[in-house]
Amino acid sequence: MPTFKATVEYDGTDFAGFQWQHGTRTVQGVLEAAIAQRTGQAVRLAGAGRTDAGVHALGQVISFQAETRIPIERMALALNSALPPDVSVRKVEAVEETFHARFSASSRLYAYLIVNRRTPSALLRRYSAFCPFLLDVEAMQAGAGALLGEQDFAAFANELEPGRTTWREVTRCQVGRYRNLVVVRIEANAFLRGMVRAIVGTLMEVGTGKRDPASIAALLHSRDRRLAGPSAPPQGLCLLKVRYGERKLYPRQKTAAAHSGGEEETEDENT
Amino acid sequence: MPTFKATVEYDGTDFAGFQWQHGTRTVQGVLEAAIAQRTGQAVRLAGAGRTDAGVHALGQVISFQAETRIPIERMALALNSALPPDVSVRKVEAVEETFHARFSASSRLYAYLIVNRRTPSALLRRYSAFCPFLLDVEAMQAGAGALLGEQDFAAFANELEPGRTTWREVTRCQVGRYRNLVVVRIEANAFLRGMVRAIVGTLMEVGTGKRDPASIAALLHSRDRRLAGPSAPPQGLCLLKVRYGERKLYPRQKTAAAHSGGEEETEDENT
Repeated sequence: MPTFKATVEYDGTDFAGFQWQHGTRTVQGVLEAAIAQRTGQAVRLAGAGRTDAGVHALGQVISFQAETRIPIERMALALNSALPPDVSVRKVEAVEETFHARFSASSRLYAYLIVNRRTPSALLRRYSAFCPFLLDVEAMQAGAGALLGEQDFAAFANELEPGRTTWREVTRCQVGRYRNLVVVRIEANAFLRGMVRAIVGTLMEVGTGKRDPASIAALLHSRDRRLAGPSAPPQGLCLLKVRYGERKLYPRQKTAAAHSGGEEETEDENT
Repeated sequence: MPTFKATVEYDGTDFAGFQWQHGTRTVQGVLEAAIAQRTGQAVRLAGAGRTDAGVHALGQVISFQAETRIPIERMALALNSALPPDVSVRKVEAVEETFHARFSASSRLYAYLIVNRRTPSALLRRYSAFCPFLLDVEAMQAGAGALLGEQDFAAFANELEPGRTTWREVTRCQVGRYRNLVVVRIEANAFLRGMVRAIVGTLMEVGTGKRDPASIAALLHSRDRRLAGPSAPPQGLCLLKVRYGERKLYPRQKTAAAHSGGEEETEDENT
């Protein structure tokens, strides 16, 4: 059966998150309904990132299999005509049957937007967090540097699943200021559940002087979520891009790897 | 009585426009309610631009008079604590009693945002128009050039009021592209009712090749609104900035001026 890869943008405000849930409005739910309506087939799709309620995406990637007579170049238009205005399919491609939006992804790039001025923003309120205290972007960037590389991110995970690795590789963590906007960009091979928002909440504490940038290394070492900052609110977060390419197999637990030698594929448990 | 000037941002989506109307939710209405709540006085405020339903503002300016014990530096915070999240007061200043947000303004700057790609944008849908046909920005800019200067803009006015001038001075009309976004920036001493959206609708026809950029001069000369393009939708429009400074008195009608010698102050009848 033909396999499709689609790039999807959505406004997460009115969704209970990406992942299908019975009786609630989810991004996966409305996408599956649109695909069913246009292809006449019930499909179950896979998404690269299981974004939480209120989290947005400019470049979420989904994959699904379906038989259809719709030419590939008209698929995006066909699906959009069956989708509500807060979800938009940007692009649909035919891919190999082995392609899986989640398991084939080699990295996810998220951006987090903070309105950093004295008064809140009416126009950006749905797409940003608000911080009235002047953020020290240089200190935040210094703290962000400690997050780079292959490390155990248990201190930033909302929940730990027994036997599953909490190691991830963060390849980019940049903090930038554009006038009154502070943007945190973070890319990793995959993220633990709640990881991006826990990192941003912690970096915001660094930015307001509540936490020293040099303390991030010790925080990682502690593996204790209670020592990290609060989760930054969901509406500031946006899944910008998912990359596909070379994937590396991942040690199950760096600490346990020497004993078991087991390797595990990372999954995006997400934001 | 002390006079205040406030700079206001709002998301126009859920408002029936700026101007107070009985029984509907307007920006003026919620601002007057917030001022009344914080100062204990019923006030009538003036706004620099009477934006239509669905039109946004980053830099609307209002003025009002009130007695209050709130220190000027805390006024913005005080008002914001009484305002809904889709309106935000950015700044409050004490000004001379003669200051009037509308009559003292020397120019208004608007921006119009167009998402110009094949598929609509879920994240920008509340703040932009959507055009799936590739816009020729150079042609649009050529057409925009014909709008500069002191001219009779009756061809872009939704309604004509007998005896009132339809001359305005457009000091800036720029069309720019940033990837898939096309932005029209237009500044004038004041605007006729519906003028910005009629201009943008007409420039979009130029951009899709339906109208020649050289035809704009003849369109202005016709003074016939039916010959201009359709009004671009309100959600793409945003009042960016209102300037105060030297204002020039305006000829009542350029054609009639020689006869009457009458001069008239321009008002922003708006968008």
